[in-house]
Amino acid sequence: MTPDWIAVDWGTSNLRAWAMGPTGVLAHAASDDGMGRLARDQFEPALLALIAPWLGQGVTPVIACGMVGSRQGWFEAPYRAVPCAPLDHGGLVRVPVQDPRIAVHIAPGLKQARPADVMRGEETQIAGALALRPAFDGVLCLPGTHSKWAQISAGEVVSFQTYLTGELFALLSQQSVLRHGMAGGGWDDAAFDTGLSDALSRPDRIGALLFTLRAEGLIADLSPAAARARLSGLLIGIELAAAKPYWLGQPVTLIGADALCQSYARALAAQGLSAQLLPATECTLAGLASLARTSETAR
Amino acid sequence: MTPDWIAVDWGTSNLRAWAMGPTGVLAHAASDDGMGRLARDQFEPALLALIAPWLGQGVTPVIACGMVGSRQGWFEAPYRAVPCAPLDHGGLVRVPVQDPRIAVHIAPGLKQARPADVMRGEETQIAGALALRPAFDGVLCLPGTHSKWAQISAGEVVSFQTYLTGELFALLSQQSVLRHGMAGGGWDDAAFDTGLSDALSRPDRIGALLFTLRAEGLIADLSPAAARARLSGLLIGIELAAAKPYWLGQPVTLIGADALCQSYARALAAQGLSAQLLPATECTLAGLASLARTSETAR
Repeated sequence: MTPDWIAVDWGTSNLRAWAMGPTGVLAHAASDDGMGRLARDQFEPALLALIAPWLGQGVTPVIACGMVGSRQGWFEAPYRAVPCAPLDHGGLVRVPVQDPRIAVHIAPGLKQARPADVMRGEETQIAGALALRPAFDGVLCLPGTHSKWAQISAGEVVSFQTYLTGELFALLSQQSVLRHGMAGGGWDDAAFDTGLSDALSRPDRIGALLFTLRAEGLIADLSPAAARARLSGLLIGIELAAAKPYWLGQPVTLIGADALCQSYARALAAQGLSAQLLPATECTLAGLASLARTSETAR
Repeated sequence: MTPDWIAVDWGTSNLRAWAMGPTGVLAHAASDDGMGRLARDQFEPALLALIAPWLGQGVTPVIACGMVGSRQGWFEAPYRAVPCAPLDHGGLVRVPVQDPRIAVHIAPGLKQARPADVMRGEETQIAGALALRPAFDGVLCLPGTHSKWAQISAGEVVSFQTYLTGELFALLSQQSVLRHGMAGGGWDDAAFDTGLSDALSRPDRIGALLFTLRAEGLIADLSPAAARARLSGLLIGIELAAAKPYWLGQPVTLIGADALCQSYARALAAQGLSAQLLPATECTLAGLASLARTSETAR
């Protein structure tokens, strides 16, 4: 089989590729050759190592999104400024390659002047969400290492805001003094709710709330599962506190990994909001497919 | 020379010892044999490697404070509960040793039931501050990896609160995505003031304020020096926001490393407070000396 085109999601830590046929995904491959570990001349070999089995005699279009298009990536795809549609065929950047069997394009990210903000990869998921729900107007939340909130209106990203929530959780739970009280697995919904409520009601006290996790582990037998879940609740809580202008009184649609989206949905439900969920990979593929269709039209 | 006694400050990362004579410090030695890298049977050799040159024929008393007395340390010195004097001779724990030339005691830390909190090492600096200023009543702030605020009244620690400020700064500036915009040295007082003001006026927005450092580096030419100083201002700002019940309308005395204390003094000055400064090592030695004096009296 030779795919019509190849979809690529190339982030800092991972490289994922899909062989796309007329009816959807023909094959999928992934590696940990993320942007973060590759020098400029290692991108094309890393891609070919994954997709070579799918290539035929002709030229196969490859459309990629994510950090691969950053200044430290394979080839820079300059940010487009909001307000604008999340993806636009005119913004695609053609990457010079050695192998004649592929024609590689990278989708650019978005930037916002004030408050300063950037995204790379999420714009494709947003475009996918709009492809899956063409009439969508409202608020999208993309939980993750760097969570994004975006206001969508008339097919455009009007504004967006990034939160370090996932990265803070990883650093604090794995590398800070708090890690001593969080070893092992497990989860505690009630502790998550407590952390969420504490942070949402008094976000100004976050600096004091974090160390109590360590202290309660030492002198009040706080379990590792409860400590980890409460940390998650605290961090999602300060995200929700700061993102209140986005979600207050608005329907919210979550795009992301299932478990994390469930935590956000639980947190929003505690604020009286019923969030809808869209799977991240489906959105990424729908977004890249919207570019592939435009490219074919433009040929 | 043989010292009257030996003062030891033994934290997670460092071991510091002072040979003490009738008029003060005779000699000083330090190593990176912190509590964090030692197994239980490695503490005595690590200590002797540092102080052996100071030992004579008789038994030299050694008085230690810090994480060496934690459950993961050399020998556990159980926390004393506030409200109480920061140090008390009765709380000293005698450590069993092999070498007959030393008699080692560890000073216990303090715990607070609600809000749960703990300290190990800072209680000795607080005791030292009270020894240096016997009539002190008011608020002490000990900036550091885990900053402490303590309310002192009638020679007792009434309450205290810990903030992860220093550890958050290290993790975010060295290991998070923000590190990319903070390489190299330099500092920017105006950027520190901006971060401080942003965080103090809207601490609930801290989740959103952090990523702007990265975004402004990418699209608005924020310099590494300004990014690092603004991060420091943001983190000290949310500490001050949460610690407001401690400092509002109170004279504050800072105990700690000079540069860090200067940042806190600048931050407090922006709130209209004139903070006094006490050097950390002087306080540690005065605190341990107060125990050494009591020990001699008790002999």
